[in-house]
Amino acid sequence: MSVCEKYYPSEPSKPSVVTSSIPGPESQRALQKLGQVFDARPAYFMGDYEKSLGNYLVDADGNTFLDLYAQISSIALGYNNPALIKAAQSPEMIRALVDRPALGNFPSKDLEGILSKILKFAPKGQTHIWSGLSGADANELAFKAAFMYYRSKARGYETPFSAEENKTVMENSTPGSPDLAVLSFKRAFHGRLFASGSVTCSKPIHKLDFPAFDWPHAEYPSYQYPLADNETANRTEDDRCLKIVEDIISSWPIPVAALIIEPIQSEGGDNHASKYFLQSLRDITTKHGVVYIIDEVQTGVGATGKMWCHEWAELQPPADLVTFSKKFQSAGYFFHDPKFIPNQPYRQFNTWCGDPARMIIAGAIGQEVADNKLVEQCARVGDYLFEKLEKLQSQYPDKFQNLRGKHRGTFIAWDLPSPAERDAFLKHLKLAGCNVGGCSTHSVRLRPSLTFDEKHADIFVNALTNVVSKL
Amino acid sequence: MSVCEKYYPSEPSKPSVVTSSIPGPESQRALQKLGQVFDARPAYFMGDYEKSLGNYLVDADGNTFLDLYAQISSIALGYNNPALIKAAQSPEMIRALVDRPALGNFPSKDLEGILSKILKFAPKGQTHIWSGLSGADANELAFKAAFMYYRSKARGYETPFSAEENKTVMENSTPGSPDLAVLSFKRAFHGRLFASGSVTCSKPIHKLDFPAFDWPHAEYPSYQYPLADNETANRTEDDRCLKIVEDIISSWPIPVAALIIEPIQSEGGDNHASKYFLQSLRDITTKHGVVYIIDEVQTGVGATGKMWCHEWAELQPPADLVTFSKKFQSAGYFFHDPKFIPNQPYRQFNTWCGDPARMIIAGAIGQEVADNKLVEQCARVGDYLFEKLEKLQSQYPDKFQNLRGKHRGTFIAWDLPSPAERDAFLKHLKLAGCNVGGCSTHSVRLRPSLTFDEKHADIFVNALTNVVSKL
Repeated sequence: MSVCEKYYPSEPSKPSVVTSSIPGPESQRALQKLGQVFDARPAYFMGDYEKSLGNYLVDADGNTFLDLYAQISSIALGYNNPALIKAAQSPEMIRALVDRPALGNFPSKDLEGILSKILKFAPKGQTHIWSGLSGADANELAFKAAFMYYRSKARGYETPFSAEENKTVMENSTPGSPDLAVLSFKRAFHGRLFASGSVTCSKPIHKLDFPAFDWPHAEYPSYQYPLADNETANRTEDDRCLKIVEDIISSWPIPVAALIIEPIQSEGGDNHASKYFLQSLRDITTKHGVVYIIDEVQTGVGATGKMWCHEWAELQPPADLVTFSKKFQSAGYFFHDPKFIPNQPYRQFNTWCGDPARMIIAGAIGQEVADNKLVEQCARVGDYLFEKLEKLQSQYPDKFQNLRGKHRGTFIAWDLPSPAERDAFLKHLKLAGCNVGGCSTHSVRLRPSLTFDEKHADIFVNALTNVVSKL
Repeated sequence: MSVCEKYYPSEPSKPSVVTSSIPGPESQRALQKLGQVFDARPAYFMGDYEKSLGNYLVDADGNTFLDLYAQISSIALGYNNPALIKAAQSPEMIRALVDRPALGNFPSKDLEGILSKILKFAPKGQTHIWSGLSGADANELAFKAAFMYYRSKARGYETPFSAEENKTVMENSTPGSPDLAVLSFKRAFHGRLFASGSVTCSKPIHKLDFPAFDWPHAEYPSYQYPLADNETANRTEDDRCLKIVEDIISSWPIPVAALIIEPIQSEGGDNHASKYFLQSLRDITTKHGVVYIIDEVQTGVGATGKMWCHEWAELQPPADLVTFSKKFQSAGYFFHDPKFIPNQPYRQFNTWCGDPARMIIAGAIGQEVADNKLVEQCARVGDYLFEKLEKLQSQYPDKFQNLRGKHRGTFIAWDLPSPAERDAFLKHLKLAGCNVGGCSTHSVRLRPSLTFDEKHADIFVNALTNVVSKL
């Protein structure tokens, strides 16, 4: 019995679209009403989560979609997973929801146990955790850790703050509020708050009209595909980008305290970084005393065929900080060097210090992923699916440009010739019963749940073939 | 029957401290273990939330505290409230926890209903809502709304972005990433991320070593108490501070797009702003085209004897944006002008757009507050308690300096002569079974749940009398 059959014995056997357009009339009516109090314009349709099951997302009109987008890559185990329902009904969950503690000041007796269940799945080498509430929050908390660490190396970990630092910080000026930068990459997405927004660099719409820090963006490699046929060109591309990184670190007018990178840039177009590139960044950051932050918000928790995507790079020594959110539902960062714990309490602190309700869900997700070998399943299903996509690519090379994500689980993407064709493609796929997301301006990204298996891949490839043959 | 008796028929009748020091041995042991994976240094003790009930917080050693801190002002209805337990066990909650939607792209069918239950309790005049995850997040989302609104007035709401804006924003430079400021106040606390950190100005430890925006801090009035005896001096103080606000708006090198203020500065020392001051800020911000943001993260949801503290000021016209979090468990901002909805979708957007699980809790809290007239109860109990504190003040004037919060519900504070005496005072109160928080460097702040009633006030005043007489 497959994992999916075990979880979802009554999962639909195929998608079913009953309206002639999407959103259908009931979604439209409900979205119009929602729009009176909330910005509902980005909605594709209104979800009916009570009726959704496993890999199938049902909408308010009764359309049943095979879901390869999974709430922007955030549903790990499918809809209405029985193990998560059990966690949601546990006494610990009731406490977490009803008596939400200020975890820094009055931690709950069970907090250590809850965190340990998440830490069990931390990337290799990472031993500590700090909790936040979203991917953007996780990244900004990691920046705070990085800035404190960077300044403590210069000042001395035990050295008290100077009178001048204590005075100037209250005026938002140096040296108390130092000019320090986080280096990121063009096409990166790390969130939409003000520091996370300053490192995000994929689309103007994310950040127009917001003040930003004067932080630099290096170039992220653009590989030629298939990788196996372009090794020399891609290595040259890596070296070109690495030189830019090192040049910026050496020359940017503001000291670069940290570097943040997605092992695969997701929102920015499913741009992959090679093992060589990620290890070289480790070497460069070590050499220059820059904190190395890996953003696993979208790539983490199994979808690339490893629990954490950057584990493919086998970094030595490990990254300094690794951030997570999305498929773990909870958010935060992992680290291994105890010196990332600030030299005084209350420096990394806030009222809630994370959400225990979401932490409990994260632990339950991790346990299910491990018990059911879902990372291994995702690697297997991804290879199966990729092979079929390669066949489609050979038939329709124009509609499957730069097919990428081979041996990276179901974390697969390709390009269409133009944004308009990509948008039409995704629309036709929805009408064919497959909910699929885009990224960048003209890419298609696959982000199914880890319970997606070969039979779902077959259904998807079948729909894809029908759609592409008619385009 | 009192509300508390209805909710908590088996609430303890009094505090009980069974260890000779706090944290007790079991808390210490557990905190030491937690400290191996998490920064547990700020913890006062380890909470046992299963055993906590109503206004009483039980710790891992079995100490039972009357809780006047309520998880840093975040527990609205006491511990293990039966109505919230019911909400936590509802089918909607299971869905929200297990199938967390990306609410912007795939909102759940019940989202409009969930949000309406929160909006029902919005400050007068506010008709829309946008959701976040914490107080800091709520404030930063409000800043984003303010910056977009401010720039859209200059550019024209329908005017497209220029090619130069679209280009420069990807370099974090003007005009795409404009230099715009948020004006806040000295001693303010609005959160600890990077933009919220730049408007926070209460203690160096919150923000040392973090880059900050070059944003200004005006002076928040410091009143003389009792207010009734110092009307002229306090009006002069208001006018002095208002002049500084207007001078900064006119002269700060970066245009001031928004002003943010707590109606009572909480972390910064329970500094109150008069009705005159808050209305004058409305007049000044209207005159200068500055967005007026009221931060009700700590003051909101009933504790001052109004649902929202700034309702005491009866602002005309209403504030532009009002942020909330803490006692509503959920977070976000309210607004009334539809032009605060950005001119394009995906400008105010992120993966989750809030947490439906916490929204459900917020709606249930609001309903209980309304059904049980808890705001009115809090006003009544606050007056009862304040009168007793005035008596203590007349006996021990040195230990109850600047007693403040008269007719502001249980949102009461006073000063001790020094930080050391304040810290000792809070420690002795804990040993006497009362969990009370401090603010600023030498103030005591009372933040009980809304279920705190006269009998709890009597117990507290009795403990206080014992402690103060021995100091």
